[in-house]
Amino acid sequence: MVSRTLLQEFTGIVGEDNVFTHEADRHTYSYDAAVLTPATPSIVLRPTHSEALGKVVALCRENSIPLTVRGAGTNLSGGSIPSEGGAVILTHGLSRILEINEEDLYAIVEPGVVTARLAAAVQAKGLFYPPDPGSQAVSTLGGNVAENAGGLRGLKYGVTGDYVMGLEFFDSEGNGVKTGSRTVKCVTGYNLGALLVGSEGTLGVIHKIILKLIPPPASRKSMMATFSQVEKASEAVSAIIAQRIVPATLEFMDNFTLRTIEDYSKVGLPVEAAALLLVEVDGHPAQVEEDAQKVESICLSSGATNLRVAQDDRERDKVWEARRTALSALAQLKPTVVLEDATVPRSKIPAMMQALEKISRKHALTIGTFGHAGDGNLHPTILTDRRNKEEWQRVEAAIHDIFDHALALGGTLSGEHGIGLAKAHYLEKETTRSTLIYSRRIKAALDPGNILNPGKITGE
Amino acid sequence: MVSRTLLQEFTGIVGEDNVFTHEADRHTYSYDAAVLTPATPSIVLRPTHSEALGKVVALCRENSIPLTVRGAGTNLSGGSIPSEGGAVILTHGLSRILEINEEDLYAIVEPGVVTARLAAAVQAKGLFYPPDPGSQAVSTLGGNVAENAGGLRGLKYGVTGDYVMGLEFFDSEGNGVKTGSRTVKCVTGYNLGALLVGSEGTLGVIHKIILKLIPPPASRKSMMATFSQVEKASEAVSAIIAQRIVPATLEFMDNFTLRTIEDYSKVGLPVEAAALLLVEVDGHPAQVEEDAQKVESICLSSGATNLRVAQDDRERDKVWEARRTALSALAQLKPTVVLEDATVPRSKIPAMMQALEKISRKHALTIGTFGHAGDGNLHPTILTDRRNKEEWQRVEAAIHDIFDHALALGGTLSGEHGIGLAKAHYLEKETTRSTLIYSRRIKAALDPGNILNPGKITGE
Repeated sequence: MVSRTLLQEFTGIVGEDNVFTHEADRHTYSYDAAVLTPATPSIVLRPTHSEALGKVVALCRENSIPLTVRGAGTNLSGGSIPSEGGAVILTHGLSRILEINEEDLYAIVEPGVVTARLAAAVQAKGLFYPPDPGSQAVSTLGGNVAENAGGLRGLKYGVTGDYVMGLEFFDSEGNGVKTGSRTVKCVTGYNLGALLVGSEGTLGVIHKIILKLIPPPASRKSMMATFSQVEKASEAVSAIIAQRIVPATLEFMDNFTLRTIEDYSKVGLPVEAAALLLVEVDGHPAQVEEDAQKVESICLSSGATNLRVAQDDRERDKVWEARRTALSALAQLKPTVVLEDATVPRSKIPAMMQALEKISRKHALTIGTFGHAGDGNLHPTILTDRRNKEEWQRVEAAIHDIFDHALALGGTLSGEHGIGLAKAHYLEKETTRSTLIYSRRIKAALDPGNILNPGKITGE
Repeated sequence: MVSRTLLQEFTGIVGEDNVFTHEADRHTYSYDAAVLTPATPSIVLRPTHSEALGKVVALCRENSIPLTVRGAGTNLSGGSIPSEGGAVILTHGLSRILEINEEDLYAIVEPGVVTARLAAAVQAKGLFYPPDPGSQAVSTLGGNVAENAGGLRGLKYGVTGDYVMGLEFFDSEGNGVKTGSRTVKCVTGYNLGALLVGSEGTLGVIHKIILKLIPPPASRKSMMATFSQVEKASEAVSAIIAQRIVPATLEFMDNFTLRTIEDYSKVGLPVEAAALLLVEVDGHPAQVEEDAQKVESICLSSGATNLRVAQDDRERDKVWEARRTALSALAQLKPTVVLEDATVPRSKIPAMMQALEKISRKHALTIGTFGHAGDGNLHPTILTDRRNKEEWQRVEAAIHDIFDHALALGGTLSGEHGIGLAKAHYLEKETTRSTLIYSRRIKAALDPGNILNPGKITGE
């Protein structure tokens, strides 16, 4: 527990209403969406302006208290699990949209702004903020930046990091660092912003984010293709990419996932299908027409048994929202849901799907698969019960196999969920020993007291 | 000079034909395209495979020899000026295109590949590598990555860093570091690739680059708009962006620049015009038609006296190539050409143009201005003679004023030319003292012997 004096100091900075030390509060922030052992902080703080945030960081540093910044806690790799006895810093009190600049196409936000709130505010001004992580309804932009969150539109529009023009953050001593600019080009100094993106709170505490906005596409068309064989759906994905079509979204769902989603959200998905593809093309109306026709003919010639074009936004939104419930729906079935994130070059999707099928049989596990097929970013999901030790061993062996296969296919451990605590010990496998040493040198130099979300990414 | 023993060791690694110590050779690599004092290396090395490159780095480190990696030496901020008595490492011997993957849309190259050579090889396969720095005919991809080179297509397509999917590089001890992936999404570990991009050879020595490719636009249209007043041209730029049109290219040239280019390249530019805009829109043919019409009507209503649409690729290429000669053409006029790179938010282009006009008068200097107006990235160019001390003082004062105005308008010191030696002492002005300290900590941790291109960016 923090001392009485220290508690008073924290209270002096953030105010009495923003300090939480009750057991219930501390437990609430002891875990995130990853399947990992919780760790209970000794204090939870909610600064309401950036100056207070900087002072909190400085005070933590002076007292060697490890701190973990937390947005909505939707993290799937343990990035927002604090250190036992450390501090959790909530960003909900820092949730102002500071500027939406319509002339120069950027927005400036505080880290606690919810992703969907910014997207809506930007849309209301006739602009577009594309990154749309699955949890956008609750996830925060600070969390999105710290994790370099992906989403359903990554294929055409990229991920969160592609929209970060500049950052202001506090170093481990609470001093202000500024990087990037309101300009679309900036090479002034090291690209510290790009280093902070995806660094999972281990190198600094972000308090201001400049995000790039773009003009919205004039038109879009959404389709749902039904397949009686998984292989045919995955071949259609490769064929679409090979035809040089870049859909905004190209999502895959196997029968297990789509049935679970249908049970949960009742939107009328074709529960008999072996696999579904959800495809959205957008852009100029003429482009959209042509791309949609090509996608349709590729799907049908790849063996789709049915292809339905959404008749209006309502029909489209219904299916897209249902897709977003995948994790929640799957989570209802079993006590433990492990959502993996291994990613392969797009042409290797059919091979990866086959590998998953084999891994599922080899370890006698239920693995549902869905995800951003167009990115090569699949989410094989293992339903299990962590308390069943024998089964959990098989789960761990299966995860190991999934990583091995992804790497053998030229892929990567994590497309968008991050390394966090969950995969820190796998990092060297994909890279080299020297890569790990290089990364640890950066961490040690920038956070010599090791107070910024310790243990994440580099595993120390 | 390096010792006889050391010379033998270097020769053993790279072979006798790839070690240069003659005075003429050493002088050849003592400067780059920036107006700065040259520094003569004691040895120039040309490794021909990446293993040799790693060994050269290790040997430099063991012997505390500062090393500067050099592509084509087109750097405009002194990034490729070596340390006096140090080693220059040429990348010309590492110039293989290792792979162009048409299914997964990436290329893997060595650092010495010339930008235009990759662009052509990719185009031959029906794909597109967009970054096109002004010097692309000679510049190398290693240099482009190390400087995060921009170019004429930055407005729509981004800069070099936006296409770097993965890197392999040697740390300061010559150990291999690997970051990123062949996949479009990757959050495996710190984004070291993004940190290396634009780090000007100070944090590692790149030997392999994975670059993203995209499908080429189906159609394009190029226009040249003539204005009788600079203000009207700059207002047209803002109006185009405000209309949510994103041209592939939106270049500005003032009368001084266009006359100089015309004298040099004789392509028939309208030498009476106060300013020219070169605009190219690309994409789906229907989109191109609409955008071209909008651009035309915006230019005319902003006061363009003439608008000419290029009738074919030949006419377009002639004008575009002429634009690319701007620096060479201006360089003929006076012994010293200072090409600045301050960048402002796009809506501030008219204000920045006015400021440049005033600065030119205040310091009684000839300042020609051209550049990537659509990015807010102008290149005010001061023609002078560095040997004229009195005039040079005025030049330095003018540069100072240019930076001050760019920063006051919410802009940045450098859009695409880098900090190098030229602007290292300005860095703190744009950011904070803590930003400089943070940057220096990274440098010191990753290169404790300070052998990797010392003095660049962080100014130590």
